Amino acid sequence: MRIEVRNPPYKIELGRGLRPARERRPAALIHDCAVTDYARRIAEATGITATRAIAGGERAKALATYGELLSWLAGLGLPRDGVLYVVGGGTLTDLGGFLAATYLRGIAYRSYPTTTLAIVDASVGGKTGINLPEGKNLVGAFHAPEAVWADLEALTTLPVRTFKEGLVEAFKHGIIAGDRALLAPFDLHPGHPDLPAYLARAVGVKVRVVEADYREAGERRVLNLGHTLGHALEAATDHRLSHGEAVAYGLLFAALLGEALGGDSLVDEVKRLLDWLEPAPLPDLAFSDLWPYLLRDKKARAEGLFWVVPLGLGRLAIRPVEAKILEETYQRFREAR
Amino acid sequence: MRIEVRNPPYKIELGRGLRPARERRPAALIHDCAVTDYARRIAEATGITATRAIAGGERAKALATYGELLSWLAGLGLPRDGVLYVVGGGTLTDLGGFLAATYLRGIAYRSYPTTTLAIVDASVGGKTGINLPEGKNLVGAFHAPEAVWADLEALTTLPVRTFKEGLVEAFKHGIIAGDRALLAPFDLHPGHPDLPAYLARAVGVKVRVVEADYREAGERRVLNLGHTLGHALEAATDHRLSHGEAVAYGLLFAALLGEALGGDSLVDEVKRLLDWLEPAPLPDLAFSDLWPYLLRDKKARAEGLFWVVPLGLGRLAIRPVEAKILEETYQRFREAR
Repeated sequence: MRIEVRNPPYKIELGRGLRPARERRPAALIHDCAVTDYARRIAEATGITATRAIAGGERAKALATYGELLSWLAGLGLPRDGVLYVVGGGTLTDLGGFLAATYLRGIAYRSYPTTTLAIVDASVGGKTGINLPEGKNLVGAFHAPEAVWADLEALTTLPVRTFKEGLVEAFKHGIIAGDRALLAPFDLHPGHPDLPAYLARAVGVKVRVVEADYREAGERRVLNLGHTLGHALEAATDHRLSHGEAVAYGLLFAALLGEALGGDSLVDEVKRLLDWLEPAPLPDLAFSDLWPYLLRDKKARAEGLFWVVPLGLGRLAIRPVEAKILEETYQRFREAR
Repeated sequence: MRIEVRNPPYKIELGRGLRPARERRPAALIHDCAVTDYARRIAEATGITATRAIAGGERAKALATYGELLSWLAGLGLPRDGVLYVVGGGTLTDLGGFLAATYLRGIAYRSYPTTTLAIVDASVGGKTGINLPEGKNLVGAFHAPEAVWADLEALTTLPVRTFKEGLVEAFKHGIIAGDRALLAPFDLHPGHPDLPAYLARAVGVKVRVVEADYREAGERRVLNLGHTLGHALEAATDHRLSHGEAVAYGLLFAALLGEALGGDSLVDEVKRLLDWLEPAPLPDLAFSDLWPYLLRDKKARAEGLFWVVPLGLGRLAIRPVEAKILEETYQRFREAR
């Protein structure tokens, strides 16, 4: 199936056994070394000979890797009207998108996401970026792909834990859009017949939110639901918690915050998600341990930290929250897990 | 005097003894260590305490410097609604603009150009970027400053050679716009009463060209007049030729190319420029030595190298040129200097 993104305009193809066409422009391809076979199929179908494998994970998003790949593209002499193919998970598409955003001040790129997270989250919104020693995604640009091809056959080699973590973002989109169908990913697996429709539905939520607010001036911030605490947990555990796991914990915290602020409770829904997810255990940290990580979050605005609080399905508030309420909620959060 | 740029909208203030206002947002300031006194005046007037000096020149535009400064900004915790002040010549504003373009996916910056080159060239057009070992400006982004303050008092400490090189770009704008007044910068010096009007006129040409074509899809490429050979000479001499000197040579080559292709000759005008400029001598290179540098030029498009050829004042062609004509013209160029 095909999802049309309007602003900027491009298409997301989502299905099984997609065959990309030959590429007539000068092109290069980078891919996660975990999906070498799949990348080779794309290179063969498109006729691209300049390819490079990268060890995925957050380390791929280091400034050093970015610099090496820039030099590789320059050494190839890829021209401004060339195109970069990016095959891999979210870290690869973040890195590859940022490469394309900045090499020669911006060339086209095509994204071939190979994880559920990359399909649901990274294929929409144009956010690209790399990390600094000081924190994740502190450097980047808005640069949308010219096309996204999400071939679910690429998911068959995905570890279960990685498969599940992308569905946490889909679940999050369910809360944002008030779409109960997205709150029950529990039976899905890479070969499940309902998976394409489920993913397309989750992508559709993000498309609608981002179209309304591409530069993240306002409404788009609802997508940070679960991410404020999530990012802090990820950083505080040095990524022992995966992104999806950290966000799932962040969703629980957000749901408890919603309860504390008088909203309809979504705590049971999020607990079901966590039971299914079986994430790495929560680190033994006091809330005060997390403050430095919370304040380092790039979404921290000068006027203070904003939280995305679900007050019910499809009803979100974006607001500062008193430290006292945060700490009490964190206590309940610790007890709930 | 004030020049209004419309797309994107910002103002260029140009004059002597400008006083910037206090900055109320979180802010950081980077400056060329060659203009520490001037930078200190700006820091005092604006109240900015987070400042950092950088050794200017092309080395400032290395990926390593970029990375260090990103970490510095992250360490300061400069938020997304903060602002970066950039005080220095073109290398500093290119670097600072790229920092601002990519730190937290884009924050505001204000430019305080301290060279004629930075005023005439770098303060308009939104081009920012850094270098790779493979070539200059191979990495970058389009990111316009929110304001430019060109205080000509900052020019009084400029070496004569550096003062003159920016006027080469102004001269180039004279050819592009067909404005004879810009072809005679020969009496100007930092204290000259006509300097503000001359610089404003030169900036105005670039403003009009860039407004018509921000993303360099077409017309904007006229600004590359003199730069195709110029960049190659710069690279081939390892920057022994300054940018302005290399462009002046490039203008002579372009003028000779214009003659060869049947245009009205501008050779005498460009020779007068070179006589006044007294550039470092032309390196003893055959045209074939320059090909690798020419083809590395980021403006090289897949379909071949395009040259901006002046066929008279204000009349420019952008076109490929046969190798035979290029080599013959290069011969005449060598003989002319």
